[in-house]
Amino acid sequence: MTTGAAPPRTASILAVGSELLGTTRLDTNSLFLTGRMDALGIATVRKACVGDGWDDLVAEIQTALERASLLVTSGGLGPTDDDRTKEAVAKVLGRRLVRDEEILSRLKERFRKRGYAMPDVNAKQADVVEGATVLVNRRGSAPGFLVEEGGRTVVLLPGVPHELKAMWDDAVAPLLARAGEPGLHRRVLKVAAMPESVVETMIKPVYAAHPSVPITILAAPGEVQLQFASRGTAGEAAAVLDRIEADFRRALGDEIFGRDDDTLEGAVGGLLRAKGKTLALAESCTGGLLAGRLTEVAGSSDYFLGAAVTYANAAKTDLAGVSAETLERYGAVSEETAREMALGARLRFGSSIGVSVTGIAGPGGGTPEKPVGTVHLALDDADGTRLHRRLATPGDRALIRRWTTSSALSLLRHHLLGTSGWRA
Amino acid sequence: MTTGAAPPRTASILAVGSELLGTTRLDTNSLFLTGRMDALGIATVRKACVGDGWDDLVAEIQTALERASLLVTSGGLGPTDDDRTKEAVAKVLGRRLVRDEEILSRLKERFRKRGYAMPDVNAKQADVVEGATVLVNRRGSAPGFLVEEGGRTVVLLPGVPHELKAMWDDAVAPLLARAGEPGLHRRVLKVAAMPESVVETMIKPVYAAHPSVPITILAAPGEVQLQFASRGTAGEAAAVLDRIEADFRRALGDEIFGRDDDTLEGAVGGLLRAKGKTLALAESCTGGLLAGRLTEVAGSSDYFLGAAVTYANAAKTDLAGVSAETLERYGAVSEETAREMALGARLRFGSSIGVSVTGIAGPGGGTPEKPVGTVHLALDDADGTRLHRRLATPGDRALIRRWTTSSALSLLRHHLLGTSGWRA
Repeated sequence: MTTGAAPPRTASILAVGSELLGTTRLDTNSLFLTGRMDALGIATVRKACVGDGWDDLVAEIQTALERASLLVTSGGLGPTDDDRTKEAVAKVLGRRLVRDEEILSRLKERFRKRGYAMPDVNAKQADVVEGATVLVNRRGSAPGFLVEEGGRTVVLLPGVPHELKAMWDDAVAPLLARAGEPGLHRRVLKVAAMPESVVETMIKPVYAAHPSVPITILAAPGEVQLQFASRGTAGEAAAVLDRIEADFRRALGDEIFGRDDDTLEGAVGGLLRAKGKTLALAESCTGGLLAGRLTEVAGSSDYFLGAAVTYANAAKTDLAGVSAETLERYGAVSEETAREMALGARLRFGSSIGVSVTGIAGPGGGTPEKPVGTVHLALDDADGTRLHRRLATPGDRALIRRWTTSSALSLLRHHLLGTSGWRA
Repeated sequence: MTTGAAPPRTASILAVGSELLGTTRLDTNSLFLTGRMDALGIATVRKACVGDGWDDLVAEIQTALERASLLVTSGGLGPTDDDRTKEAVAKVLGRRLVRDEEILSRLKERFRKRGYAMPDVNAKQADVVEGATVLVNRRGSAPGFLVEEGGRTVVLLPGVPHELKAMWDDAVAPLLARAGEPGLHRRVLKVAAMPESVVETMIKPVYAAHPSVPITILAAPGEVQLQFASRGTAGEAAAVLDRIEADFRRALGDEIFGRDDDTLEGAVGGLLRAKGKTLALAESCTGGLLAGRLTEVAGSSDYFLGAAVTYANAAKTDLAGVSAETLERYGAVSEETAREMALGARLRFGSSIGVSVTGIAGPGGGTPEKPVGTVHLALDDADGTRLHRRLATPGDRALIRRWTTSSALSLLRHHLLGTSGWRA
């Protein structure tokens, strides 16, 4: 698609400010910038954060310019002594800073409108890297700059997110856009409750069929995301992404529950609604988290009736209808108890389907026969379907609980689809 | 404090993974690493993110090693083809990768325990940069590494946050610590379910008493954090931090529920245990999230008996004992229903205390009299205490649900403390 065209442009993002090297602040501007540059056909190859120290700042700008043809900086354009991004860029490019009288008068006017005189320190915001294009800031005092030098471009933006975003869309994007230039379009496919390495093995044919497509596997607890992208106009890219998606679906079948912003609980909710079925739960070790995920979906009251969170054994009997004999004979964490809980939830709430979870989330409570991570899931449908799964999940309490909710939702999803799932 | 000592050590952090150059993921590990290194007297001077591309990865590692004496990488240690951090570090340091049979057998055992054979792709996780110290991963499959070369140190950690954190505290911190070295020590105090502006007003005297201490207020949904720091040995810093903490406690009193890693659900659990009381819930709009938070605490089964998640009205009557007449006359979202739910939960589960939540989380279901964000909380203690709060929470569905769980926990906490709270 890009045959004969110029090579794709690359970019480096640099966020300047010592607060970004602390324990609380992340450079969220880079997410916005990456997406906007992708659409212009500019690939972000790296991003960095650096403090206000002069030597570090100069070194970082030098490195960035060696690594990509475009450098976008955010922050360090303010009036204080530790705002030195402009000075550092001028130093690296071997240019002077010159005071711009037009910017100076705009700044003074801005302060006058707010009812006070411009403090002297703000005058430095009117300094311009010689030869730079000035980018107007309609939401703040610091203007931005675009400087070109030997085929490289540096864009200097303020760090305040709403100022940066407005300046990009107002002034930077029009300067960087190239007519007909293909952009990068992304897609994400999602799989639930499968180990990353099993997914990896199953999708080998997709890698083989698309050797030049960058495919990223991303594992979150209970979910694997497959991210890929294609370069071209929107239409060209969609056609390529559709082909790759079809190959993923051939490799993984119904294990793919959604794409992009889809959630597993949303997918399950959509199926329950489509099939006209209602759901109730009996939860033990997940302690309400499974109900919590299902009710994250707006409108879930259409199909979700409720849950009995039966942490104590007496509650398993009273609310979920598990017989005292079953608890006595097989224990609270057993296939038998799980099956009775699922049936009990269905009958108690009068739902079409009951799903249950009982297990040992740890850190205490494990035994050699039933170690921490042992979980029993069961499903009981009024149509006569009865399912059970035993899980052995590694990790800590939070991970076991999260994995368990994904496994339960996945079991329910496959039941509603009429498929069996990779594990069965 | 550092007179005559070696110069402060500096560090560079590098997060590896193409997903970090997309539009959704930020390198949150760097926040943890920065705090931990600060405490060891190691200053983070820069951090960067780079994709899986070989040339970029090698260049980034080279740059980082030129800029600081310590490089900490996260990610790229997994089993897939695009996990190449080890290979790139070996290349930059001019070392070989060698397969470690002990790691290999640990990996195989790990998979065997989960019930299936190790996929062949995982074998590369047993490759070690020659001469490196192996860092055991007690929460995942990828081991980490520490390599020293010409006065510089490279630490390679997995990207999964809970694996990285455990590995740092278990294995890395002891190797990097130097006795007597002054570090930057931080403390965080936490307040629940209060608006940031109310907290800000109450702590004005603390700012005035400590003009040179950087104090940061950080607001998360349902929680405000007060962060401050002091430089010195652990003992010197603790004395300063204790004085500041005492001033915060004078200003905010019992609104401070904990510090550092304390959680509100942990604080409530500790009080329930100390008072020998048990708890049951009836939840509607929070749909299990309140029970989910309470059961995040290991050992919560000592005091938490269970919850009736009564999404459907029939369940409010059947499981939580709300009379059909109350539902009919006042509606599901009302003080009367909330009070009956709290009593019903207490009686149904046989607990000392019942707490209930009913409200409108949105986006649909609001009316002029009961707009989205209207929530009723109630508490019913066998000692005769009966409490009720009406909340009007702004924000979207997720924010309203999170604020509601914090408000309910805070109500319960003040009841257990015998205090009334700022709002009462």
